[in-house]
Amino acid sequence: MSNDPLRAALSLRFGHSSVPAEIDVPGDADALARMAAHRSHRAFQPRPVDEGLLRLLCSVALSAPTKSDLQQRDVVLVQDPGLRRALEALMPSVDWLPGAPALIVVCGNNRRQRRLHELRGHAFANDHLDAFFNAATDAAIVLAWLVAAVEAMGLGCCPVSAIRNEADAVSRMLHLPDYVFPYAGLALGWPADEGVLNPRLPLAATVHVDRFDDAALPTHVADADQRRMEQKPFAKQRFPAELGTADLYGWSEDVTRQYSRPERAAFGAYVRARGFKLE
Amino acid sequence: MSNDPLRAALSLRFGHSSVPAEIDVPGDADALARMAAHRSHRAFQPRPVDEGLLRLLCSVALSAPTKSDLQQRDVVLVQDPGLRRALEALMPSVDWLPGAPALIVVCGNNRRQRRLHELRGHAFANDHLDAFFNAATDAAIVLAWLVAAVEAMGLGCCPVSAIRNEADAVSRMLHLPDYVFPYAGLALGWPADEGVLNPRLPLAATVHVDRFDDAALPTHVADADQRRMEQKPFAKQRFPAELGTADLYGWSEDVTRQYSRPERAAFGAYVRARGFKLE
Repeated sequence: MSNDPLRAALSLRFGHSSVPAEIDVPGDADALARMAAHRSHRAFQPRPVDEGLLRLLCSVALSAPTKSDLQQRDVVLVQDPGLRRALEALMPSVDWLPGAPALIVVCGNNRRQRRLHELRGHAFANDHLDAFFNAATDAAIVLAWLVAAVEAMGLGCCPVSAIRNEADAVSRMLHLPDYVFPYAGLALGWPADEGVLNPRLPLAATVHVDRFDDAALPTHVADADQRRMEQKPFAKQRFPAELGTADLYGWSEDVTRQYSRPERAAFGAYVRARGFKLE
Repeated sequence: MSNDPLRAALSLRFGHSSVPAEIDVPGDADALARMAAHRSHRAFQPRPVDEGLLRLLCSVALSAPTKSDLQQRDVVLVQDPGLRRALEALMPSVDWLPGAPALIVVCGNNRRQRRLHELRGHAFANDHLDAFFNAATDAAIVLAWLVAAVEAMGLGCCPVSAIRNEADAVSRMLHLPDYVFPYAGLALGWPADEGVLNPRLPLAATVHVDRFDDAALPTHVADADQRRMEQKPFAKQRFPAELGTADLYGWSEDVTRQYSRPERAAFGAYVRARGFKLE
């Protein structure tokens, strides 16, 4: 099997110098190439996504690993048009969302574990950070497998973290009880175009051997910034009125401008109000 | 393409009643079937895993989605035999780990974002729960894609959450600085056997439409317990001296016995000591 698509995707992602001269793939090289070529899609054909297919993709995603087999995550298919519009109204910055044919909300769920302990008559001795952490990361694992399954179908998708911006309102709309919280939305559909993959930091920045070492971070960031500007330049700059217009506007300038403004500062209070102790 | 392997895996996972009569797969049905058939492997052939292949799998995993493209996760390949033994000594309950040919540690990393803000001269205005949450879930996403990539190669693996049991010692051994923390290990190799997939809760318990509803949880748990006892019975019961020997020992009995004892109660203090505010 040819490794050209895999090599091409990894070169675009991490830069040519990150990709070895020889790639020997002992298994399904097509699957690796598709995962390496992951991209977010925010523009879709008007064609709907069949509910049977949505459910199939969820079942595959719910087959992913889960901490201690505890299955501390659920998915909510948003099918009601009124509910969909109400959720979208909470996320006006996600202006492309109304054009997405389908929306799934992935939730962390530590409520089930607590109920299991009641059902079985065993004390729950882990009411600390771990309870929240494991539910959150279990939800992230399901989102990740959902994206991989979506892309294996030729569908396109984009995770929507803005669902957490108004977590309390979302919880009321979806009738989420205590110890259940929205982690991310996934908007999906048949993509309107091929999309462009996001260049990333070179692998030397994120793959360590035996000991963590980020001494070369400035060099690695400059490399990622340069490739981003060449391959997928930003259409506009964030907060130009306050922060000015940069001559060179790469990845690091964009993400640090984004996080120079508070986002989800109320999420911790929300999580505690759902019952979690984060001790 | 035949959907028989996909149907078989989903039936074993969720029960026959969870699987629709017709499955129409518009894309790569083999990939879905492989993901649906995910299983953990803890017994391996002595054959090593080539470092080039490990790096390839990491590069594919690091192509996964990441919150706001912030890339708040890293991987550490454990190659040094002394380091490997020292890590294993911290996790004596993971008694199969010394037999795994390779070990990768997936870490959350919010340090890079903070350094980016220094490099670009923009204030970091998000020193609250979100900073930890996004790094943790980004790490989980990479673990999930790593597992999918590993299994696409015919390799087998098992995540090792016990790496967090002694997070402070692990951090010293891997030289993790502040704002970087171990999320999970992934032990992998060429599997010694086919393995058995874990039955899960029926999809009616975890796939909701428009509103969360777990009113039928006791029925769903009984179903999962029954299938677990039939398909993959537990080899031994947890804490029989303290909790007795159960006649029917299913999934819910096992996980609630596990969590009737404290696990990682010090993780919150560790996370705060790494610099994170969880407000």
